Amino acid sequence: METPDFPRDLERLFNPESVAVVGASNAPGKWGFMMPMNILGGGYRGGLYMVNPNEQSVLGLPTFGSLLDIGAPVDLAILTIPAKKVAGILREAASIGVRNVVIVASNFREVGAEGTDLELEIARIANESGITIVGPNTMGIYSSTSSFCALGAPVFPRQGEVGFISQSGNLGVQLLSWGRRRGIGFSRFVGSGNSANTEISDYLAFLGDDPNTGIILLYIEGIDDGNRLLEVARRITPHKPIVALKAGRGEQGRSAARSHSGALAGAFDLFKGMFEQAGILIAGSTEELVDLAAALSSVPLPRGDRVAVMTMGGGWGVAAADACDREGLELATLSESLVSELDSFLPSFWSRRNPVDIVGNVKRSSHFRVLDSLAKSPDVDMVVAMGTLLGKGFFADNILNTVVRPVYFLARLRTTRLVSFALAITRGLSKSWSRRGERDQEGSGGIDPSEMSKWTDSAIVNRMKALMEDERKPIIAVSVNEEESSFLRLKGSRLYIASSPERAIRVAGKMVAYSRFRASAGPEPDAPDLEGDSG
Amino acid sequence: METPDFPRDLERLFNPESVAVVGASNAPGKWGFMMPMNILGGGYRGGLYMVNPNEQSVLGLPTFGSLLDIGAPVDLAILTIPAKKVAGILREAASIGVRNVVIVASNFREVGAEGTDLELEIARIANESGITIVGPNTMGIYSSTSSFCALGAPVFPRQGEVGFISQSGNLGVQLLSWGRRRGIGFSRFVGSGNSANTEISDYLAFLGDDPNTGIILLYIEGIDDGNRLLEVARRITPHKPIVALKAGRGEQGRSAARSHSGALAGAFDLFKGMFEQAGILIAGSTEELVDLAAALSSVPLPRGDRVAVMTMGGGWGVAAADACDREGLELATLSESLVSELDSFLPSFWSRRNPVDIVGNVKRSSHFRVLDSLAKSPDVDMVVAMGTLLGKGFFADNILNTVVRPVYFLARLRTTRLVSFALAITRGLSKSWSRRGERDQEGSGGIDPSEMSKWTDSAIVNRMKALMEDERKPIIAVSVNEEESSFLRLKGSRLYIASSPERAIRVAGKMVAYSRFRASAGPEPDAPDLEGDSG
Repeated sequence: METPDFPRDLERLFNPESVAVVGASNAPGKWGFMMPMNILGGGYRGGLYMVNPNEQSVLGLPTFGSLLDIGAPVDLAILTIPAKKVAGILREAASIGVRNVVIVASNFREVGAEGTDLELEIARIANESGITIVGPNTMGIYSSTSSFCALGAPVFPRQGEVGFISQSGNLGVQLLSWGRRRGIGFSRFVGSGNSANTEISDYLAFLGDDPNTGIILLYIEGIDDGNRLLEVARRITPHKPIVALKAGRGEQGRSAARSHSGALAGAFDLFKGMFEQAGILIAGSTEELVDLAAALSSVPLPRGDRVAVMTMGGGWGVAAADACDREGLELATLSESLVSELDSFLPSFWSRRNPVDIVGNVKRSSHFRVLDSLAKSPDVDMVVAMGTLLGKGFFADNILNTVVRPVYFLARLRTTRLVSFALAITRGLSKSWSRRGERDQEGSGGIDPSEMSKWTDSAIVNRMKALMEDERKPIIAVSVNEEESSFLRLKGSRLYIASSPERAIRVAGKMVAYSRFRASAGPEPDAPDLEGDSG
Repeated sequence: METPDFPRDLERLFNPESVAVVGASNAPGKWGFMMPMNILGGGYRGGLYMVNPNEQSVLGLPTFGSLLDIGAPVDLAILTIPAKKVAGILREAASIGVRNVVIVASNFREVGAEGTDLELEIARIANESGITIVGPNTMGIYSSTSSFCALGAPVFPRQGEVGFISQSGNLGVQLLSWGRRRGIGFSRFVGSGNSANTEISDYLAFLGDDPNTGIILLYIEGIDDGNRLLEVARRITPHKPIVALKAGRGEQGRSAARSHSGALAGAFDLFKGMFEQAGILIAGSTEELVDLAAALSSVPLPRGDRVAVMTMGGGWGVAAADACDREGLELATLSESLVSELDSFLPSFWSRRNPVDIVGNVKRSSHFRVLDSLAKSPDVDMVVAMGTLLGKGFFADNILNTVVRPVYFLARLRTTRLVSFALAITRGLSKSWSRRGERDQEGSGGIDPSEMSKWTDSAIVNRMKALMEDERKPIIAVSVNEEESSFLRLKGSRLYIASSPERAIRVAGKMVAYSRFRASAGPEPDAPDLEGDSG
């Protein structure tokens, strides 16, 4: 299909002042029901017209017999009608000057010759009338700036700077939902579907210029216009990261993609080489796409590949070092002065090298000082911090596990010891309290109760954020608990919390690759300063 | 170090009738405090002796001046004293016939020549006296059969069949905690630490014969006795899976491992080849080790490599197909009869091939029937099911998102429409209800309210479990939400829920490899029937 040559108005697609839903319905579960429900649920403030000749009203809003009856400008028409009725409605839309149409129906190109004919017909109508078709076979669009949630599923993304173009509607919408739980904010989403007359590259060009979009995600099964896509991408990647998940890599994947979106996927290796040259990051899996979106929207880009790893235990340090080997990152060499700085407050048996193993030292102030020292070192480009995040359940778990459980079992198994146990604990704690604040570098004196106020997630989150602002270096926290890391991320807003050291360092490796690409692409005076955006 | 030649009694290590803590302390946070607290908190019922010459009692239990003063048999001594004092105590332990000693202290081999001398000395004492040393530099042991939680951190694993030997204490204990959240049950844990006189292979031999252990996990940094380990493993893998995470793979990782446990790690490729030949599965990351533990303890082994994928949306199917390409698995070819079976109840536009894309069909009974058909097909060795799990927040989220949100925004933005909106929703729902149970194959008639009772996680979890029992094939559910999948796993006990299709299929690939190894190793009449264990 040739790229149609008409001026588009994607600004109106993403920020429509008025929207008509053709095929609007009161039947729960139908597309014509879900679309307007989700538009209402998203808090859209513009005009919303329900088109249905057989109903007096839909969802409490008055209906119109057809688009022609609305008698007011319509910026966007959403068609929730079967494939065979689309062409006729499209002609009506053209006649009242609609410039953007979302077509939900499937049964087009992806189902064979008849569907392809239908798709070519609607593309011809749209091209002649200057209409941008989103889809067909799409689950819709989302736009933060107009709180516009025209999606086929009740997913309401957080507002943010991630723009997302997905050839698969279901996968795209589920990734929005996954992103929501991970605390990722989105600016725009579009399910490109079959791309009847609007290609991924068209949306990409818009997002490239969109001041609300700082990072762009792509889910691609196959593309008709690879060269144009690369051309558009090359204009964007020097100032805005693009992350692509390319599906249909192997033989079975390609075949599945053909059956799904009708897309003809090319050889992955060729694709990969071209994309990397254009500065596009390739995500290896759905999970990695989400990880990269979280990281790129949370932490500044590293200026080099030297990683400092902080860990509470050696094993995690080895896992991180292995991951650095795998991703081609260098473990920063600690200078003598940095080692003696750390010597001054860490237990004598700390690793004295990178990974910085603080050997189970639970002094909270030491954690902060290690983070500070590493982040401020000129030998370090980024910090991966393990074991310092506590999670929302930390205090509850700790009290349950360290106090309630022993008491419970004492009561059941050694009842006569309960009173003296309580006394012992009380005495121990009061002794700790009387020695509060005393310097105990070896960390063997137990917990310092005067530090209690520092034992919160907010404390560490705020310290990390301040450090990133000051040093403009990424600090990636690791918490091997996706539930907790999502929670912390939500609280800490711009903080990337990885759920394993391997995932942290994989993401770091891709960020380094992109940072190098940016450096080689040279400075762009007009480019938004993404690194400076980390506060 | 040569393998010492004395008869061990690891049965007593994991099921001690009496335990002495040497260095027991009332100071919160100290090792001598945490160890007995966690033993109490685990619900251990055996004798517990506190050894501390300077205290009258510790944690409410009477103290003894030394091991010699106890005057009763001690099956296990846990030493929470500094490295330099260990040799002396070990001699005392030997003199009263203690056969197993856990040594927590670090500052041995891993810190250089002086520490190595100290370690050689304690190994010599132990070997002469027939004492098995766990450690030094360990965070302890856990055993389900005696509710014995002698760990340096308040982690209380669920009881189950996974045995775990970890060279890193901190990593090991955190993986226990991670496993707890993921619903994995453990039989034994041991932090092997520096392996003064007891190697990973010694523990492995014990777990191989242990009827309470059905799967064995290893975290290995370096090994002195690679050949012996392989020899022991080869006796186990024909009837019990062993999964190893080998740290110290690359140059930086090896160097970190040397600094951490003093282990000399060999070239990874050599290691990998030998391990795979012995039927040991290699986990690529900490996360994969956890995934494999969850899967192997939850679902039967596949008998072949033909995967059927069920998906609500094509994009996820393509991602799964790609993963199959990557892991060398085959997408099962659906027979004509299977296709027409699915035709009889799926919407006409379902994919009609594998991945089975049921195109957003929300009829719950269809989900069940697809699962049934796929699992029962002789052309299918395992099923990966996406999009059918709902999660604990499903109903709350759905009500919030699809009803409360629109009402909220209507009240704020289109107040006059509220009443007619409410009427429309009520009428729509009552119309749905009046048509309940009507066959609507296209799935376009919205939700069938008579199916509500089927829309629960328990329903799908129970169906999957029953299917696995009947068909003895693994069914892996995917929920792209680790929090929810953990929750569901906990409810459903023996069910493996992956948090992405790629992770599901990666695990499936390793299970196929192991299943093939088992088949090639031939049947073992005495081997426990792990596949039959899935109910």
